[in-house]
Parts: sequence; C-alpha cells; structure tokens
Amino acid sequence: MDEFALIRKHFKTLTPASSDVTLGIGDDCAVMAPPPGEELAVTTDTLVAGRHFDPAAKAEDIGWKSLAVSLSDLAAMGARPRWFVLALTLPQAGEAWLERFAQGLKAAADKHGIVLVGGDTTSGPLSVTITAMGTVAAGKAIRRSGAKPGDLVCVTGTLGDAALALQLGLATQCARFDPDREFLKARLNRPVPRLDAGCKLRSLAHAAIDLSDGLAGDLQHVLGASWVGAEIYTEKLPMSQAFQRLSPPASRLSLQAAGGDDYELCLCLPPEALAEARRKLELPLTEIGRITREPGLRWLDAGGGLLDGASLRAYNHFPDPEPARA
Amino acid sequence: MDEFALIRKHFKTLTPASSDVTLGIGDDCAVMAPPPGEELAVTTDTLVAGRHFDPAAKAEDIGWKSLAVSLSDLAAMGARPRWFVLALTLPQAGEAWLERFAQGLKAAADKHGIVLVGGDTTSGPLSVTITAMGTVAAGKAIRRSGAKPGDLVCVTGTLGDAALALQLGLATQCARFDPDREFLKARLNRPVPRLDAGCKLRSLAHAAIDLSDGLAGDLQHVLGASWVGAEIYTEKLPMSQAFQRLSPPASRLSLQAAGGDDYELCLCLPPEALAEARRKLELPLTEIGRITREPGLRWLDAGGGLLDGASLRAYNHFPDPEPARA
Repeated sequence: MDEFALIRKHFKTLTPASSDVTLGIGDDCAVMAPPPGEELAVTTDTLVAGRHFDPAAKAEDIGWKSLAVSLSDLAAMGARPRWFVLALTLPQAGEAWLERFAQGLKAAADKHGIVLVGGDTTSGPLSVTITAMGTVAAGKAIRRSGAKPGDLVCVTGTLGDAALALQLGLATQCARFDPDREFLKARLNRPVPRLDAGCKLRSLAHAAIDLSDGLAGDLQHVLGASWVGAEIYTEKLPMSQAFQRLSPPASRLSLQAAGGDDYELCLCLPPEALAEARRKLELPLTEIGRITREPGLRWLDAGGGLLDGASLRAYNHFPDPEPARA
Repeated sequence: MDEFALIRKHFKTLTPASSDVTLGIGDDCAVMAPPPGEELAVTTDTLVAGRHFDPAAKAEDIGWKSLAVSLSDLAAMGARPRWFVLALTLPQAGEAWLERFAQGLKAAADKHGIVLVGGDTTSGPLSVTITAMGTVAAGKAIRRSGAKPGDLVCVTGTLGDAALALQLGLATQCARFDPDREFLKARLNRPVPRLDAGCKLRSLAHAAIDLSDGLAGDLQHVLGASWVGAEIYTEKLPMSQAFQRLSPPASRLSLQAAGGDDYELCLCLPPEALAEARRKLELPLTEIGRITREPGLRWLDAGGGLLDGASLRAYNHFPDPEPARA
C-alpha cells in the first residue's frame, strides 16, 4: 500500500466535516477560515521514539500523547483548539500499528474538538511531529511574560505522577488490578491537556505555561520572560493519592519539581483572583508560591528554609558538557 | 549550551518584527493575526537525512531546501507565505552545523517573505519538519480538483534537472567551473518555489499541484481529484540546456516524468487563458498536454503513439511488496 493510500485509510476518519475547514487532507495545503476577530495560536512538537516515548508502548497511547502535548501548549495560551497537521516518520508501514496509532490520535482529537487537516508520511526512524493550531480572541492570549511581583504561583491538578510512572517502569507494563499504578500509568501515557482551565482563566491570569519539562525549568521561562523571581513552598506541591502511596519520600521533591511530562498548567494570578479562578474550574488549583521582585527561583521547606535548587534541573535535550545523548 | 540557548542564538535572526506576528518564538505558542478576508493555507513536510537529503550535503543547502519544499506547496495553492514553525531533530548540537543550517533557512525565508515564529528542537536521528502557513483571499485557493476536459496541462520552468543532478552524484560534489553541473546541482539543492507563478495564475488556473514526487505521480493526483484523464506530449516536456547536454537520451523521459524534486508547478488552464498566463509570468510556461474526459494518464511520443507508462512511477515512500527502505 502506498503512502497516499495509508493516509486515506487511517487518517480520513480524523477529518470530520467542519465548517471552518475549506479544504482538508488531499491537496498541496489545507485551507481553513480563521474566525473573524480571533488570532491564530500555533505550536509544533516532535516526539522521538526512545526519547519521548518507549517504542514498545501501545500505539494508541503514542497517538494520544503526540497530540496531547501540543494541545497542552494551546491550553497554556488560553486558545481554543481548531486544526492540526501530522508529520509521521515510520521505519515501515506496519498497518496494525498505524491503525492503532490513528485510533489514539482520534480519541484525543475528538475529545478536544480538534480536526486533522493535513500531513506528511515518510519512512525513517520513528518520530511524530504535530503542529496544532488554535484561535483566541485578539490580544487575549496568556503569555509567559506577564507575571508581576505579588502574583500567586498556582498549578492545576497534581505534580510528579508521570515522572513516578516512568521511574516505576509503568509505561509499557500491564498494571491492571492496581488502581494506583493504573492511574500513574495513565498520567504518563494519556495526559489530559488543561484546555478548559486555560480558556476559563484567560481573563484572570497574568501569565501561564504548561508543565512539560518540569516545574523547575518551565517556571524559569516565566520568570525570565517576566523579569521577576519566585519562591515556591515545596510542601504545598500537590500530590495525587497514588503518588503519596507509591513515591519514595526522598525523591518526591525532585519528581514533582523536575520530573516533567505532567502537562498541568502553571499560572500566575493576582491574589484577589484566586477564589474566582477556583470557582471557575472543576479541577484543583493549588497555590504553590509567590512571584517576587527579587530575581531567581527559591525553593522553601515547610519552615521557610531555603533548599538547594541545583538538583532540580529541567529536562534538557542537549546537556553540557556532553552534547549527544542519541 | 541547552536547547533554548541554541534556538535563541541561531534562529532569533529568522524572526524579524512583522506587523502580523503578535507573539513570536519563546512562548508556548506563537500568535499571529491573519489578515481579514483571507483564508489560511497550511502544509507540513518532513525531510529525513539519507532519504530526502544527503547527510553530507552542506547544512546551508539542507536549511534552504527544507523550507523551499513547503513554500512550493503554498505556491501550488496561490497562497502568499506568512509564517512557519520548525521542528528540528539532531543527533547532537553541533554549533557550526546549526549556524550554517540557520543561514540557509534564513536565505530562503528572507527571499520569500516568510517569518519563523516557533519551533521545537529534540535530539535524535537528523530530520527537519517544517509547517508553513500562508494566506489567500477567501475561496480563491487553487485546488487539485478543478481540472476540466479540454484544459491545457502546463508546467513552469524545466523538468528533470534535480533527478539528473542526483543521478550524476552532484548533491555533495564540488562542481565549480562547470556551469552545467553547477546549474543542475543548484536545482537539486536550492530549489526555488514558484510562489510568484502561483499567485499570478490563481485567477486563471483551474487546478494546480507542485511537482515534488515527479510529474507522473503528481499529475495523477490532479486527475484523481478532478475525475478526468490526460494525455502528455512527451516531446514537449521542457528541458534546460544543461539537461540537454548532460542527460543520456535513453533516460530523459524517466528523469523528466518520474524523477521528482523539481518543485515546478503543474497547472491546468483553459486554452484561452494561456497567452495571458504567459504574459503574467517571467519564467517559461510550457504546454505539455491536455486534460481529457477519458480517465487515465497517457504518454504520447512525437508521432502521437502511446508509450508504456508503467515505467514512469512516482516516488513512493512505502513501495509494495517490500515495505521498509529505511
């Protein structure tokens, strides 16, 4: 089967008729009509086998997660998902794998109201690049650069679940009949982008970022873009019950602060907006710290003592001094 | 140097201030303002090392071509290039390579008025995925599906140069002081997307496609989408002087019809529009055939005799019966 037939067969069901799609898969470009008065928010992410996912993971999960990580970026802007394009590189055209990959992708797309409009399939080492497009009222996207001294640093959901799942080797394990392990595994393999939270808090938050590389690294981006600092009350970092039960106490902080792959949102809010923000959301919103005029990111223990933050480092694809990890 | 520093250092110069870019590189998403009354045209393409380009090729050329192939898709719609995002997977963060890659990318971007607005850098086997966005007046994009019986099949420029360059092993060769080889090598490594032709012929053409996989395969897509057939007068396929001088006569037809990588446009025009179309363009527009009611693609020799078209096959990433070529 040639690549065009493959695409037609497995991805056509991902392109339901949508009033804003003038021309979907099957031409040189897709053509869409952005809603008047809205701006376009665009993000692109690559997931490489063996680095961002275990090649032995279920193809459905790889499909789901590939889209979810891009949707999480749209969530951080407060944008509404609209369209995406898929660039898929495969070592071979394994039909069963493709079918399941497309199923997982479709499940994530349907759940979040985004439509596949185009793609490219090439043969090579397995990797998935998705470019997702959303729209947001002009001038209303939440940026990283708007945090102000005195703002509360808040996070949605819980932190550290995905990193713990990875540490416990749950990515490809059958964990049936153990609800805690099943929960953690789902947090790693089937992250749920916080699109609803991003949209609802758009008018309240001064700044936002999604937590893909870990709180330590991602929050640094907000601080750098906003020219501020922050102090984080480590005892307030929200834990799931499964995380509480299964994480070794000694590694909790590093899992929560530097683990990554959580796809929760970190938002900076003026203190007076917190109650309203919580009313608007269905998922927990936890105050974990405060933006300061003084630059730098400080981690505080329950007694207010300063912790060593050097061990809490963000995931870096090209760490010094050894550049290659591939 | 971490990946954020790499991106800042090498790609920031690719993002000049642009009135329609609300927020460029450095946030969860880029945010752009599509012009009122225009639709968005989007295309994504992956170039994999060892498949779409020689890993030993000059990094500048890889950068240029990565963008040019996507711009060629915008050209085929008659769209104006606006913004692109870059997903770059690299085995290691070789700074010298990155700098030259960015130079080539910037040269193509500046020449064609498109702005880098975001990206993702990961480590893994070398590949480049670019998603390019353009805009086009609502309802005016040229589609593959509009060809009508009686239309002339026309192509811009010349065909077969890139395939000949590949056959002669010119991709990575130093060909200085031989203008023919230098010309062919540039056609392979530095294709020039026909954006001007796409825009200018938008109101005249019934259908268009860009020639990336070769005339035989690409024209089939137009015929399939338009529910028509075509006859091609093989002696009319336009040849460059370098191609005439250096191609073995026996392989000319297959190089021109199935070679691919030309990035010329193939357009279907009503006969009465040809003169006006030629007046509008600065590059040659050659009539090479005619759209027929009878389905199928027929290759005719100078005497009108039917040639065997089976040997003229499009490039296929997943050929039967052996699925893997990686």
